[in-house]
Amino acid sequence: MWVLRPVYPQPSGMSEGNSDIVVMKFGGTSVAGAEEIKRAARRIVAAREAGSQVVAVLSARGKTTDELVAQALEISPRPDSREMDMLLSTGERISCALCAMAIHDMGHKAISLTGSQAGIVTDSSHTNAKIIDVRADRISEKLGEDRIVLVAGFQGVSTDSHDVTTLGRGGSDTTAVALAAALGASVCEIYTDVAGVFSADPRIVPDARKLSLASFEEMLEMSASGAKVLQLRSVEYARNHGVRIHCRSSFEDGPGTLVVTELEAEQETVEQPFVTAVTHSESEARVTLTGIRDEPGVAGEIFTALADADVNVDVIIQNEPVGDDQLADLSFTIASGDLTKAIEAIEALGEVSKGIRTDERIGKVSIIGAGMRSHPGVAARVFEVLGGERINIEMISTSPIKISCVISAGEIPQAVRALHQAFDLGADAVKPEDPTGAGHRPTVSG
Amino acid sequence: MWVLRPVYPQPSGMSEGNSDIVVMKFGGTSVAGAEEIKRAARRIVAAREAGSQVVAVLSARGKTTDELVAQALEISPRPDSREMDMLLSTGERISCALCAMAIHDMGHKAISLTGSQAGIVTDSSHTNAKIIDVRADRISEKLGEDRIVLVAGFQGVSTDSHDVTTLGRGGSDTTAVALAAALGASVCEIYTDVAGVFSADPRIVPDARKLSLASFEEMLEMSASGAKVLQLRSVEYARNHGVRIHCRSSFEDGPGTLVVTELEAEQETVEQPFVTAVTHSESEARVTLTGIRDEPGVAGEIFTALADADVNVDVIIQNEPVGDDQLADLSFTIASGDLTKAIEAIEALGEVSKGIRTDERIGKVSIIGAGMRSHPGVAARVFEVLGGERINIEMISTSPIKISCVISAGEIPQAVRALHQAFDLGADAVKPEDPTGAGHRPTVSG
Repeated sequence: MWVLRPVYPQPSGMSEGNSDIVVMKFGGTSVAGAEEIKRAARRIVAAREAGSQVVAVLSARGKTTDELVAQALEISPRPDSREMDMLLSTGERISCALCAMAIHDMGHKAISLTGSQAGIVTDSSHTNAKIIDVRADRISEKLGEDRIVLVAGFQGVSTDSHDVTTLGRGGSDTTAVALAAALGASVCEIYTDVAGVFSADPRIVPDARKLSLASFEEMLEMSASGAKVLQLRSVEYARNHGVRIHCRSSFEDGPGTLVVTELEAEQETVEQPFVTAVTHSESEARVTLTGIRDEPGVAGEIFTALADADVNVDVIIQNEPVGDDQLADLSFTIASGDLTKAIEAIEALGEVSKGIRTDERIGKVSIIGAGMRSHPGVAARVFEVLGGERINIEMISTSPIKISCVISAGEIPQAVRALHQAFDLGADAVKPEDPTGAGHRPTVSG
Repeated sequence: MWVLRPVYPQPSGMSEGNSDIVVMKFGGTSVAGAEEIKRAARRIVAAREAGSQVVAVLSARGKTTDELVAQALEISPRPDSREMDMLLSTGERISCALCAMAIHDMGHKAISLTGSQAGIVTDSSHTNAKIIDVRADRISEKLGEDRIVLVAGFQGVSTDSHDVTTLGRGGSDTTAVALAAALGASVCEIYTDVAGVFSADPRIVPDARKLSLASFEEMLEMSASGAKVLQLRSVEYARNHGVRIHCRSSFEDGPGTLVVTELEAEQETVEQPFVTAVTHSESEARVTLTGIRDEPGVAGEIFTALADADVNVDVIIQNEPVGDDQLADLSFTIASGDLTKAIEAIEALGEVSKGIRTDERIGKVSIIGAGMRSHPGVAARVFEVLGGERINIEMISTSPIKISCVISAGEIPQAVRALHQAFDLGADAVKPEDPTGAGHRPTVSG
């Protein structure tokens, strides 16, 4: 049995160094309208009044970023990326300024800072910049003046040209985690419109269970395989810098999901479950190159071209070459949004294969759990369950804590439900009177 | 006879110092939609291709600033002014980024800069900051790299706290003039939705004539007495720094109105007209304090209180004290938007008068012309014309080049038309065959 650590330290602990700093991040739906901004302001003020110093990172309101992108595309089919960053970075600044106004009206001092003013220093890869340094002096100074600091998410300033940069979609999560790391915050709270990380998508599996705890490794696999609650890069950053993440709902109280180190997760849990969650993705596409020569250089050439075109390749299968000509087939999956880019990149290579086939009607279902390491039978059980549902597994990829199966997109909901039930991940499964609840991570109250 | 100087220097003159820099400013209606932004971009590119180095200052698109203000008021009845500046400054950045994209697509290199990046340094009076320095190094550097530089208008950065500041409504005009002065530009072109400065409001006087030329002094009086085409502060700045302004339409070609020094205007004109333009304002209010003691200190106390409350007083009349108690009446006019503030400021003084009367149904009609200095009969003619229309003049104020009459707001259109005709200001009046056209500044083609 275990309980969640209090997220805000007790007042008695406040003088111990930086341990009383909390970073709170509010996503687009959490600041969409005036009411949502005031609600976020109230949460921020409550954390301040509970004794923490608060840095809040805000996303752009609701559909603001989409609208700005639409304005750019109305002007230019391929907008200049430096100017795109200048354009897109305005959305988060608007959220921060408005939230600061709301906090002032609640009797607290607040100040909004741009990414640049907050010291988020990045490389110069416009529209997809990487944070290379966090110079949080100005934030620390403002916290020292008893101010709540609001930071525009998703943006920074490039070292070389002092231009505004953006971190790519979902980059505000990374801003928050990076600030939490730089400030030595006790926790980085990510507020969204869902209550935490679930054992499966609740829209597909109604009895999906909110996870109390996940390890960084599990969360990485979940983010990479379809769970949308946390941006992959922010989880990587948190793991590398040991930042505790707390995913919570901005619309309800109560704890959400803590993402912590594997060691910490193990210490908090009496018994490790085989499987933590089932994730899925329907926006996959498969590319099959037929009749490529089975030479070492050919596959390397193809995947280098894809990497250069910024296409992430997920699952790869190469058939054994057959016949006298030693020609093989090569299949791989990518995000369906990258399909055009991928085909262009391969065609630019000239004659590498006899033909290209694509399939956009595929999806991927994955089961994830740190406990799989010590339970080698899990893969067999997955194949058995999907087989029992008469679902054809087209491709497979595994890691020590993940098994992903590429299947027909139309069969995704059925596969998710079957796996979720087979591994007893549901909320009902952990009720004390449920005999099948054994072997599962207990809920918060457990 | 005179002709307008070419706005863009001939290519042969290009190498002479900075004389080939042009600053172009586009107002909100000139960048409202994608088409307008592309049109502005084409004008900018045309100026560049004609041989000039171009710095363009852009306002926020259409109603953007109003919408941002509305968002702030939805959150807070009295938004914090520092945060208001953070909020409002985003509008011009959006315009600049979009215009830079459009220019790129036309095959030219452009870069958008925030007010801060452009070196517009201000004091810390948030929402109404004054420019105290222009450090245009980065602009010069980018011009040297053969780039078109787009600068977000209306904003700067404060010296002390490095916070974003804004210059108040219409501040983009001042940004443009300040940059033109700092860069030694040959001209500051102000593009709006009207073709220039007119001899009267064309909505009231259909045959109002577009002025080819106005002196800074005339333009100051016009801006101060109701003409909306140029912000008063920008004209003051231009006069103090000798920046030639060219007011033009962004929707049609052809010259607009040049605003230059009085000396230059005189040199360009064969014969000085008595009167250049009739302006009017309907958003005036009159405050009358009845029964104030006729002591020197009292009026000073009242007008100091109004100045402290940021209320601009226009016309003032004090009656002679009558009766044994030496009590007088004091009347003054202010912008009707300032009425509440003004009354609060006076009431805060305690018992300075027996009563306060206000009248919001008044307006002001003014005639302006540098030639009035040498034609003392103009005032008499104004009173005669208004008297002939049976319009009662309630207050009068004059300067060497202006006569303003406070009249009933309802009679403004009639007064404007009568004065415009009496002083032969109409476009018809200057046709060669018109015998009454003598004594008027010739038109461009004249």
